[in-house]
Amino acid sequence: MNKNRQRTFIENVQPLVDNGLYPIKREPGDKVHVTADIFRDGHQKICAWVEYRVAGRQKWNYVRMECTNPGLDFWEAEFEVDQIGFYEYCLASYCDDYATWVFDTRKKVDAGVDYHSDILEGIELASKFKGWLKDSDKDYLKKALAQAEKQLTDAALWQILSDPKLEALLSANPDPATRVESPLYKVRVDRVKARFAAWYECFPRNCAFEPGKHGTFKDVIKRLPHIAGMGFDVLYFTPIHPVGHTKRKGPNNSLVCSETDPGCPYSVGNEHGGHDAVNPELGTMEDFEELVKAAAGYGIELAMDFAINCSPDHPYLKQHPDWFSKRPDGTIKFAENPPKKYEDIYPLNFECEKYKEIWDEMLRLFLFWAEKGVRIFRIDNPHTKPFRFWQWVIAETQKKYPDVIFLAEAFTRPKLMKSLAKLGFTMSYSYFTWRNEKQELTDYFKELTTPPESDFYRANLFTNTPDIFPYFLQTGGRAGYQIRAVLATTLSTVYGMFQGFELCEGIPIPGREEYLNSDKYEIRYRDWNAPGNIVEMIAKLNRIRKENPALQEYDNLEFYRADNDKILFYGKSMGDNHIMVVVNLDPFQTQVSTVYVPIEKFGIAPDQFYEVHDLLTDNRYW
Amino acid sequence: MNKNRQRTFIENVQPLVDNGLYPIKREPGDKVHVTADIFRDGHQKICAWVEYRVAGRQKWNYVRMECTNPGLDFWEAEFEVDQIGFYEYCLASYCDDYATWVFDTRKKVDAGVDYHSDILEGIELASKFKGWLKDSDKDYLKKALAQAEKQLTDAALWQILSDPKLEALLSANPDPATRVESPLYKVRVDRVKARFAAWYECFPRNCAFEPGKHGTFKDVIKRLPHIAGMGFDVLYFTPIHPVGHTKRKGPNNSLVCSETDPGCPYSVGNEHGGHDAVNPELGTMEDFEELVKAAAGYGIELAMDFAINCSPDHPYLKQHPDWFSKRPDGTIKFAENPPKKYEDIYPLNFECEKYKEIWDEMLRLFLFWAEKGVRIFRIDNPHTKPFRFWQWVIAETQKKYPDVIFLAEAFTRPKLMKSLAKLGFTMSYSYFTWRNEKQELTDYFKELTTPPESDFYRANLFTNTPDIFPYFLQTGGRAGYQIRAVLATTLSTVYGMFQGFELCEGIPIPGREEYLNSDKYEIRYRDWNAPGNIVEMIAKLNRIRKENPALQEYDNLEFYRADNDKILFYGKSMGDNHIMVVVNLDPFQTQVSTVYVPIEKFGIAPDQFYEVHDLLTDNRYW
Repeated sequence: MNKNRQRTFIENVQPLVDNGLYPIKREPGDKVHVTADIFRDGHQKICAWVEYRVAGRQKWNYVRMECTNPGLDFWEAEFEVDQIGFYEYCLASYCDDYATWVFDTRKKVDAGVDYHSDILEGIELASKFKGWLKDSDKDYLKKALAQAEKQLTDAALWQILSDPKLEALLSANPDPATRVESPLYKVRVDRVKARFAAWYECFPRNCAFEPGKHGTFKDVIKRLPHIAGMGFDVLYFTPIHPVGHTKRKGPNNSLVCSETDPGCPYSVGNEHGGHDAVNPELGTMEDFEELVKAAAGYGIELAMDFAINCSPDHPYLKQHPDWFSKRPDGTIKFAENPPKKYEDIYPLNFECEKYKEIWDEMLRLFLFWAEKGVRIFRIDNPHTKPFRFWQWVIAETQKKYPDVIFLAEAFTRPKLMKSLAKLGFTMSYSYFTWRNEKQELTDYFKELTTPPESDFYRANLFTNTPDIFPYFLQTGGRAGYQIRAVLATTLSTVYGMFQGFELCEGIPIPGREEYLNSDKYEIRYRDWNAPGNIVEMIAKLNRIRKENPALQEYDNLEFYRADNDKILFYGKSMGDNHIMVVVNLDPFQTQVSTVYVPIEKFGIAPDQFYEVHDLLTDNRYW
Repeated sequence: MNKNRQRTFIENVQPLVDNGLYPIKREPGDKVHVTADIFRDGHQKICAWVEYRVAGRQKWNYVRMECTNPGLDFWEAEFEVDQIGFYEYCLASYCDDYATWVFDTRKKVDAGVDYHSDILEGIELASKFKGWLKDSDKDYLKKALAQAEKQLTDAALWQILSDPKLEALLSANPDPATRVESPLYKVRVDRVKARFAAWYECFPRNCAFEPGKHGTFKDVIKRLPHIAGMGFDVLYFTPIHPVGHTKRKGPNNSLVCSETDPGCPYSVGNEHGGHDAVNPELGTMEDFEELVKAAAGYGIELAMDFAINCSPDHPYLKQHPDWFSKRPDGTIKFAENPPKKYEDIYPLNFECEKYKEIWDEMLRLFLFWAEKGVRIFRIDNPHTKPFRFWQWVIAETQKKYPDVIFLAEAFTRPKLMKSLAKLGFTMSYSYFTWRNEKQELTDYFKELTTPPESDFYRANLFTNTPDIFPYFLQTGGRAGYQIRAVLATTLSTVYGMFQGFELCEGIPIPGREEYLNSDKYEIRYRDWNAPGNIVEMIAKLNRIRKENPALQEYDNLEFYRADNDKILFYGKSMGDNHIMVVVNLDPFQTQVSTVYVPIEKFGIAPDQFYEVHDLLTDNRYW
């Protein structure tokens, strides 16, 4: 439109991420609740719509906005998303000239003053609508106007012109010349698993049923009933590719390595292939595909680790020496964090001239594995590669496989973690692993579950990882594991644990948050029924999550009052499903606290009895 | 740049108004303190600048940003504005490759590991800079490299390459190919009077020195010493144009009007002319120009009322009948707020086909009066005209007269008032007139003086206006006037009062916030020395404002603690100048309260004695 003629203004649109630069995120079945300040000069009426569609489709859908706070010019509307992929939407406002005319004229009619001239104006105004109404509506209008022509009194004409059906029709089809629209905004819709999932992380090579033996995909298949029994629905494998030989690391990351040491799977590639191959010790590609299918039978989806680390033996080094950084003497550079050297890893040089070849190859790998049935990728250290690369490769992968989920394993500064989420990562690691106290848990989870953050950042809470053995678990004993299990399963909807957590096991490297004899560097065997395990509790927590819709929503977390600083009290509601969680954050002793149940939020009157059902013990209280 | 190669990101730039859609506002001497989140993937160093210039000038100025919170990737810089008009600025970030090299290599040097290859890389990297350094810098670099060539040991080479002067030079001139820049943002710089001024509003026709006589510009000249004596520096006139005859309103807005009634000056235009003429009863245009000069001699600037209301006798009606709305019968429409009729006012139709003619004519009027020496316009009811018109006419006027100040007299919904300020109004009326209680004053002034609002909205606090005689003044007696005078002069830096306030005068229309016998409709005479006046107090308040820099800053307002809900305690600081204001909001009785002086903000130790100087009574306390 001619900007000079613009009368309505649309401001402060919500929800937006960085003013619409990045999409907001939703899952099928979600509502996108759009709000904005919309106004014009003067007192004339205006109207507004949210216009949305599945990106790329022709058909637009319209939902009329409602001014729910006229004093603040605050408008609202919502629409539902059900397709995976992108939606786009904009806001459009118009002058509602006919409603203005009816409103103003009614005041004269009611006041009993002469309104003959207004009637003539009303007819003129209504007639203008013939210029843009669609045929069926035009017919309706024409009939009304023809009927009006036969009337003799202003009162009779007023009856026809103020007919609510006519007013509604013309108000629904305002003058297109008055249209003002917002920029086009985007919604990224990921499947529900992006929001609600329980991850179990393991090294498949450490799944054998015999101490000292290299586990295989077939062993993992045998472990599936146990994993499914605990209620997990994502099985996340550390890298399964051939492991480098040169400078291979021994147990506990030692530089010395024996013939039989399996190496670190994050050093990818040897004579058997690179990122599109499987380690023959784990089995064949067919074994892997069989495992994918078997897992699906248990309702378990496989997640693959994607670590852009090449061992000195990776085929790329010979095929594409240009992809790597070289020293002035022509040799290829290994990874360094001066003065530390990582001689078993050669990083791809994303700054090289042929960087686009690297991008294309990475895309090929994602599509290759997606084709094999892997639709969840956990990306190792994405914050050390160019962010624009991730933005591109995620978008390109999802163009072909819209259901692919990318988890950003970035444990770094908050702005970088958020940026990766904005640029396309479906979900992200978080600082949960190091938040133990009431205040810090409350602050952090309020931030995570409140816009703008909840609109683009889905925090996948890991209790532990092969690299992180938190002090809280090191010192808190079995109760410590139980505390962290409850927090992880209820503070977010998506969480993960690394194998062994359920056994409350682990010996730390003294003074460090790391495991001694880490799975990363050696073959390990575990007794999955070792005494003291919390397998049953985890199974129960996962069952409770599945049975209670309130625990399947991400942004409905609320913190309630508990007097004791060691007692964290929070809850989630979804319709009639109200979950309250009370956690003793102190693993060493019983803590007592008054907790203040927010009965008003649950629609319970102050004098009303209500039942509380303890889902862990199955006790019921009045 | 090629977006694929982008490594740094600039986010969350502050201060911005609507994400940079509208300029922030400042006055000469102000600092623009720019902050942003700037980061890149990986661990390499980056650098950033704020680049700014007076809009339209060729020369850019650069100020390097500093990362003041590395954990949050938070960067800051500031620049000063001293020219009236627009500044533009952007943020630019780069990869700081040489600083990265020095940092990484230093770690190896310090750890005593071999760094020969790094030295070779450093030389190669430094050489690259020859590609973009300016000649004098290039010479410096070449000399350093030539010196390096003569060295035999890595240690000697390291000395040359890590020379802080060389590092600073190359860090100040990073690879232009890595440049990432923000959008261009704008600062509107208005003269200091936009922020700091004391307005006195009057009807010049009511300035005669004899009851019943129509005042003149010459009378106003005689009143100047009194007005200047009270400390006012802006004298704001309600419209001074010829007043319409047809349907002229009588006293108290009555429809009946006698021969001698002067009419309402907001009904502009008669046979003597329209908006570019002066009412002959006030004097000639020469008289007016003389008044402008005489006022300047007292340090007083004239502000003119700009009311786009045409009387039925305005020349426009004959010259430009197309500019008005017509009824179906061809007659021109007067103003209505159904069922109310305003038959003495014909509104211009900004929706007419020739609307651009109206725009041009309005611009002509602003330029006409600016030429006559009027550089402050108070715009009557801007919220009932198209906002895009204001945006245009303000911008066009300020192109020719950058010092022109526009005050938006919009008492309407907050979003409209804010929008007008964003679109170009220099300052705005506010809800101050109706904020009397401690909590509402605190809330409202926190909002006004905090970003984003303080970046675009300058609230001109009016104690009263010809249209508004607040209940607080109606009922509060002399103390009520004193309370409002103290609040107006200290809560904001710019405020106004309508003549008669200083006399604590006024008879209300019962049950309404309006004056009986309003100056708007009749000739009125006042005894400017009437007993009970607060002239001296106002003079003292204005003197205190001029003597204390803290009271000349808008956004330095802070509220402090006072136990009594009727006692408002706040303050302003600027350098060593600390002003505390304690106001009893209760006009009816003495109130007692403990107030908590924030000595830590004033740099006073808890055990230190300090003096408080009561600027109203000149008492001093220890």
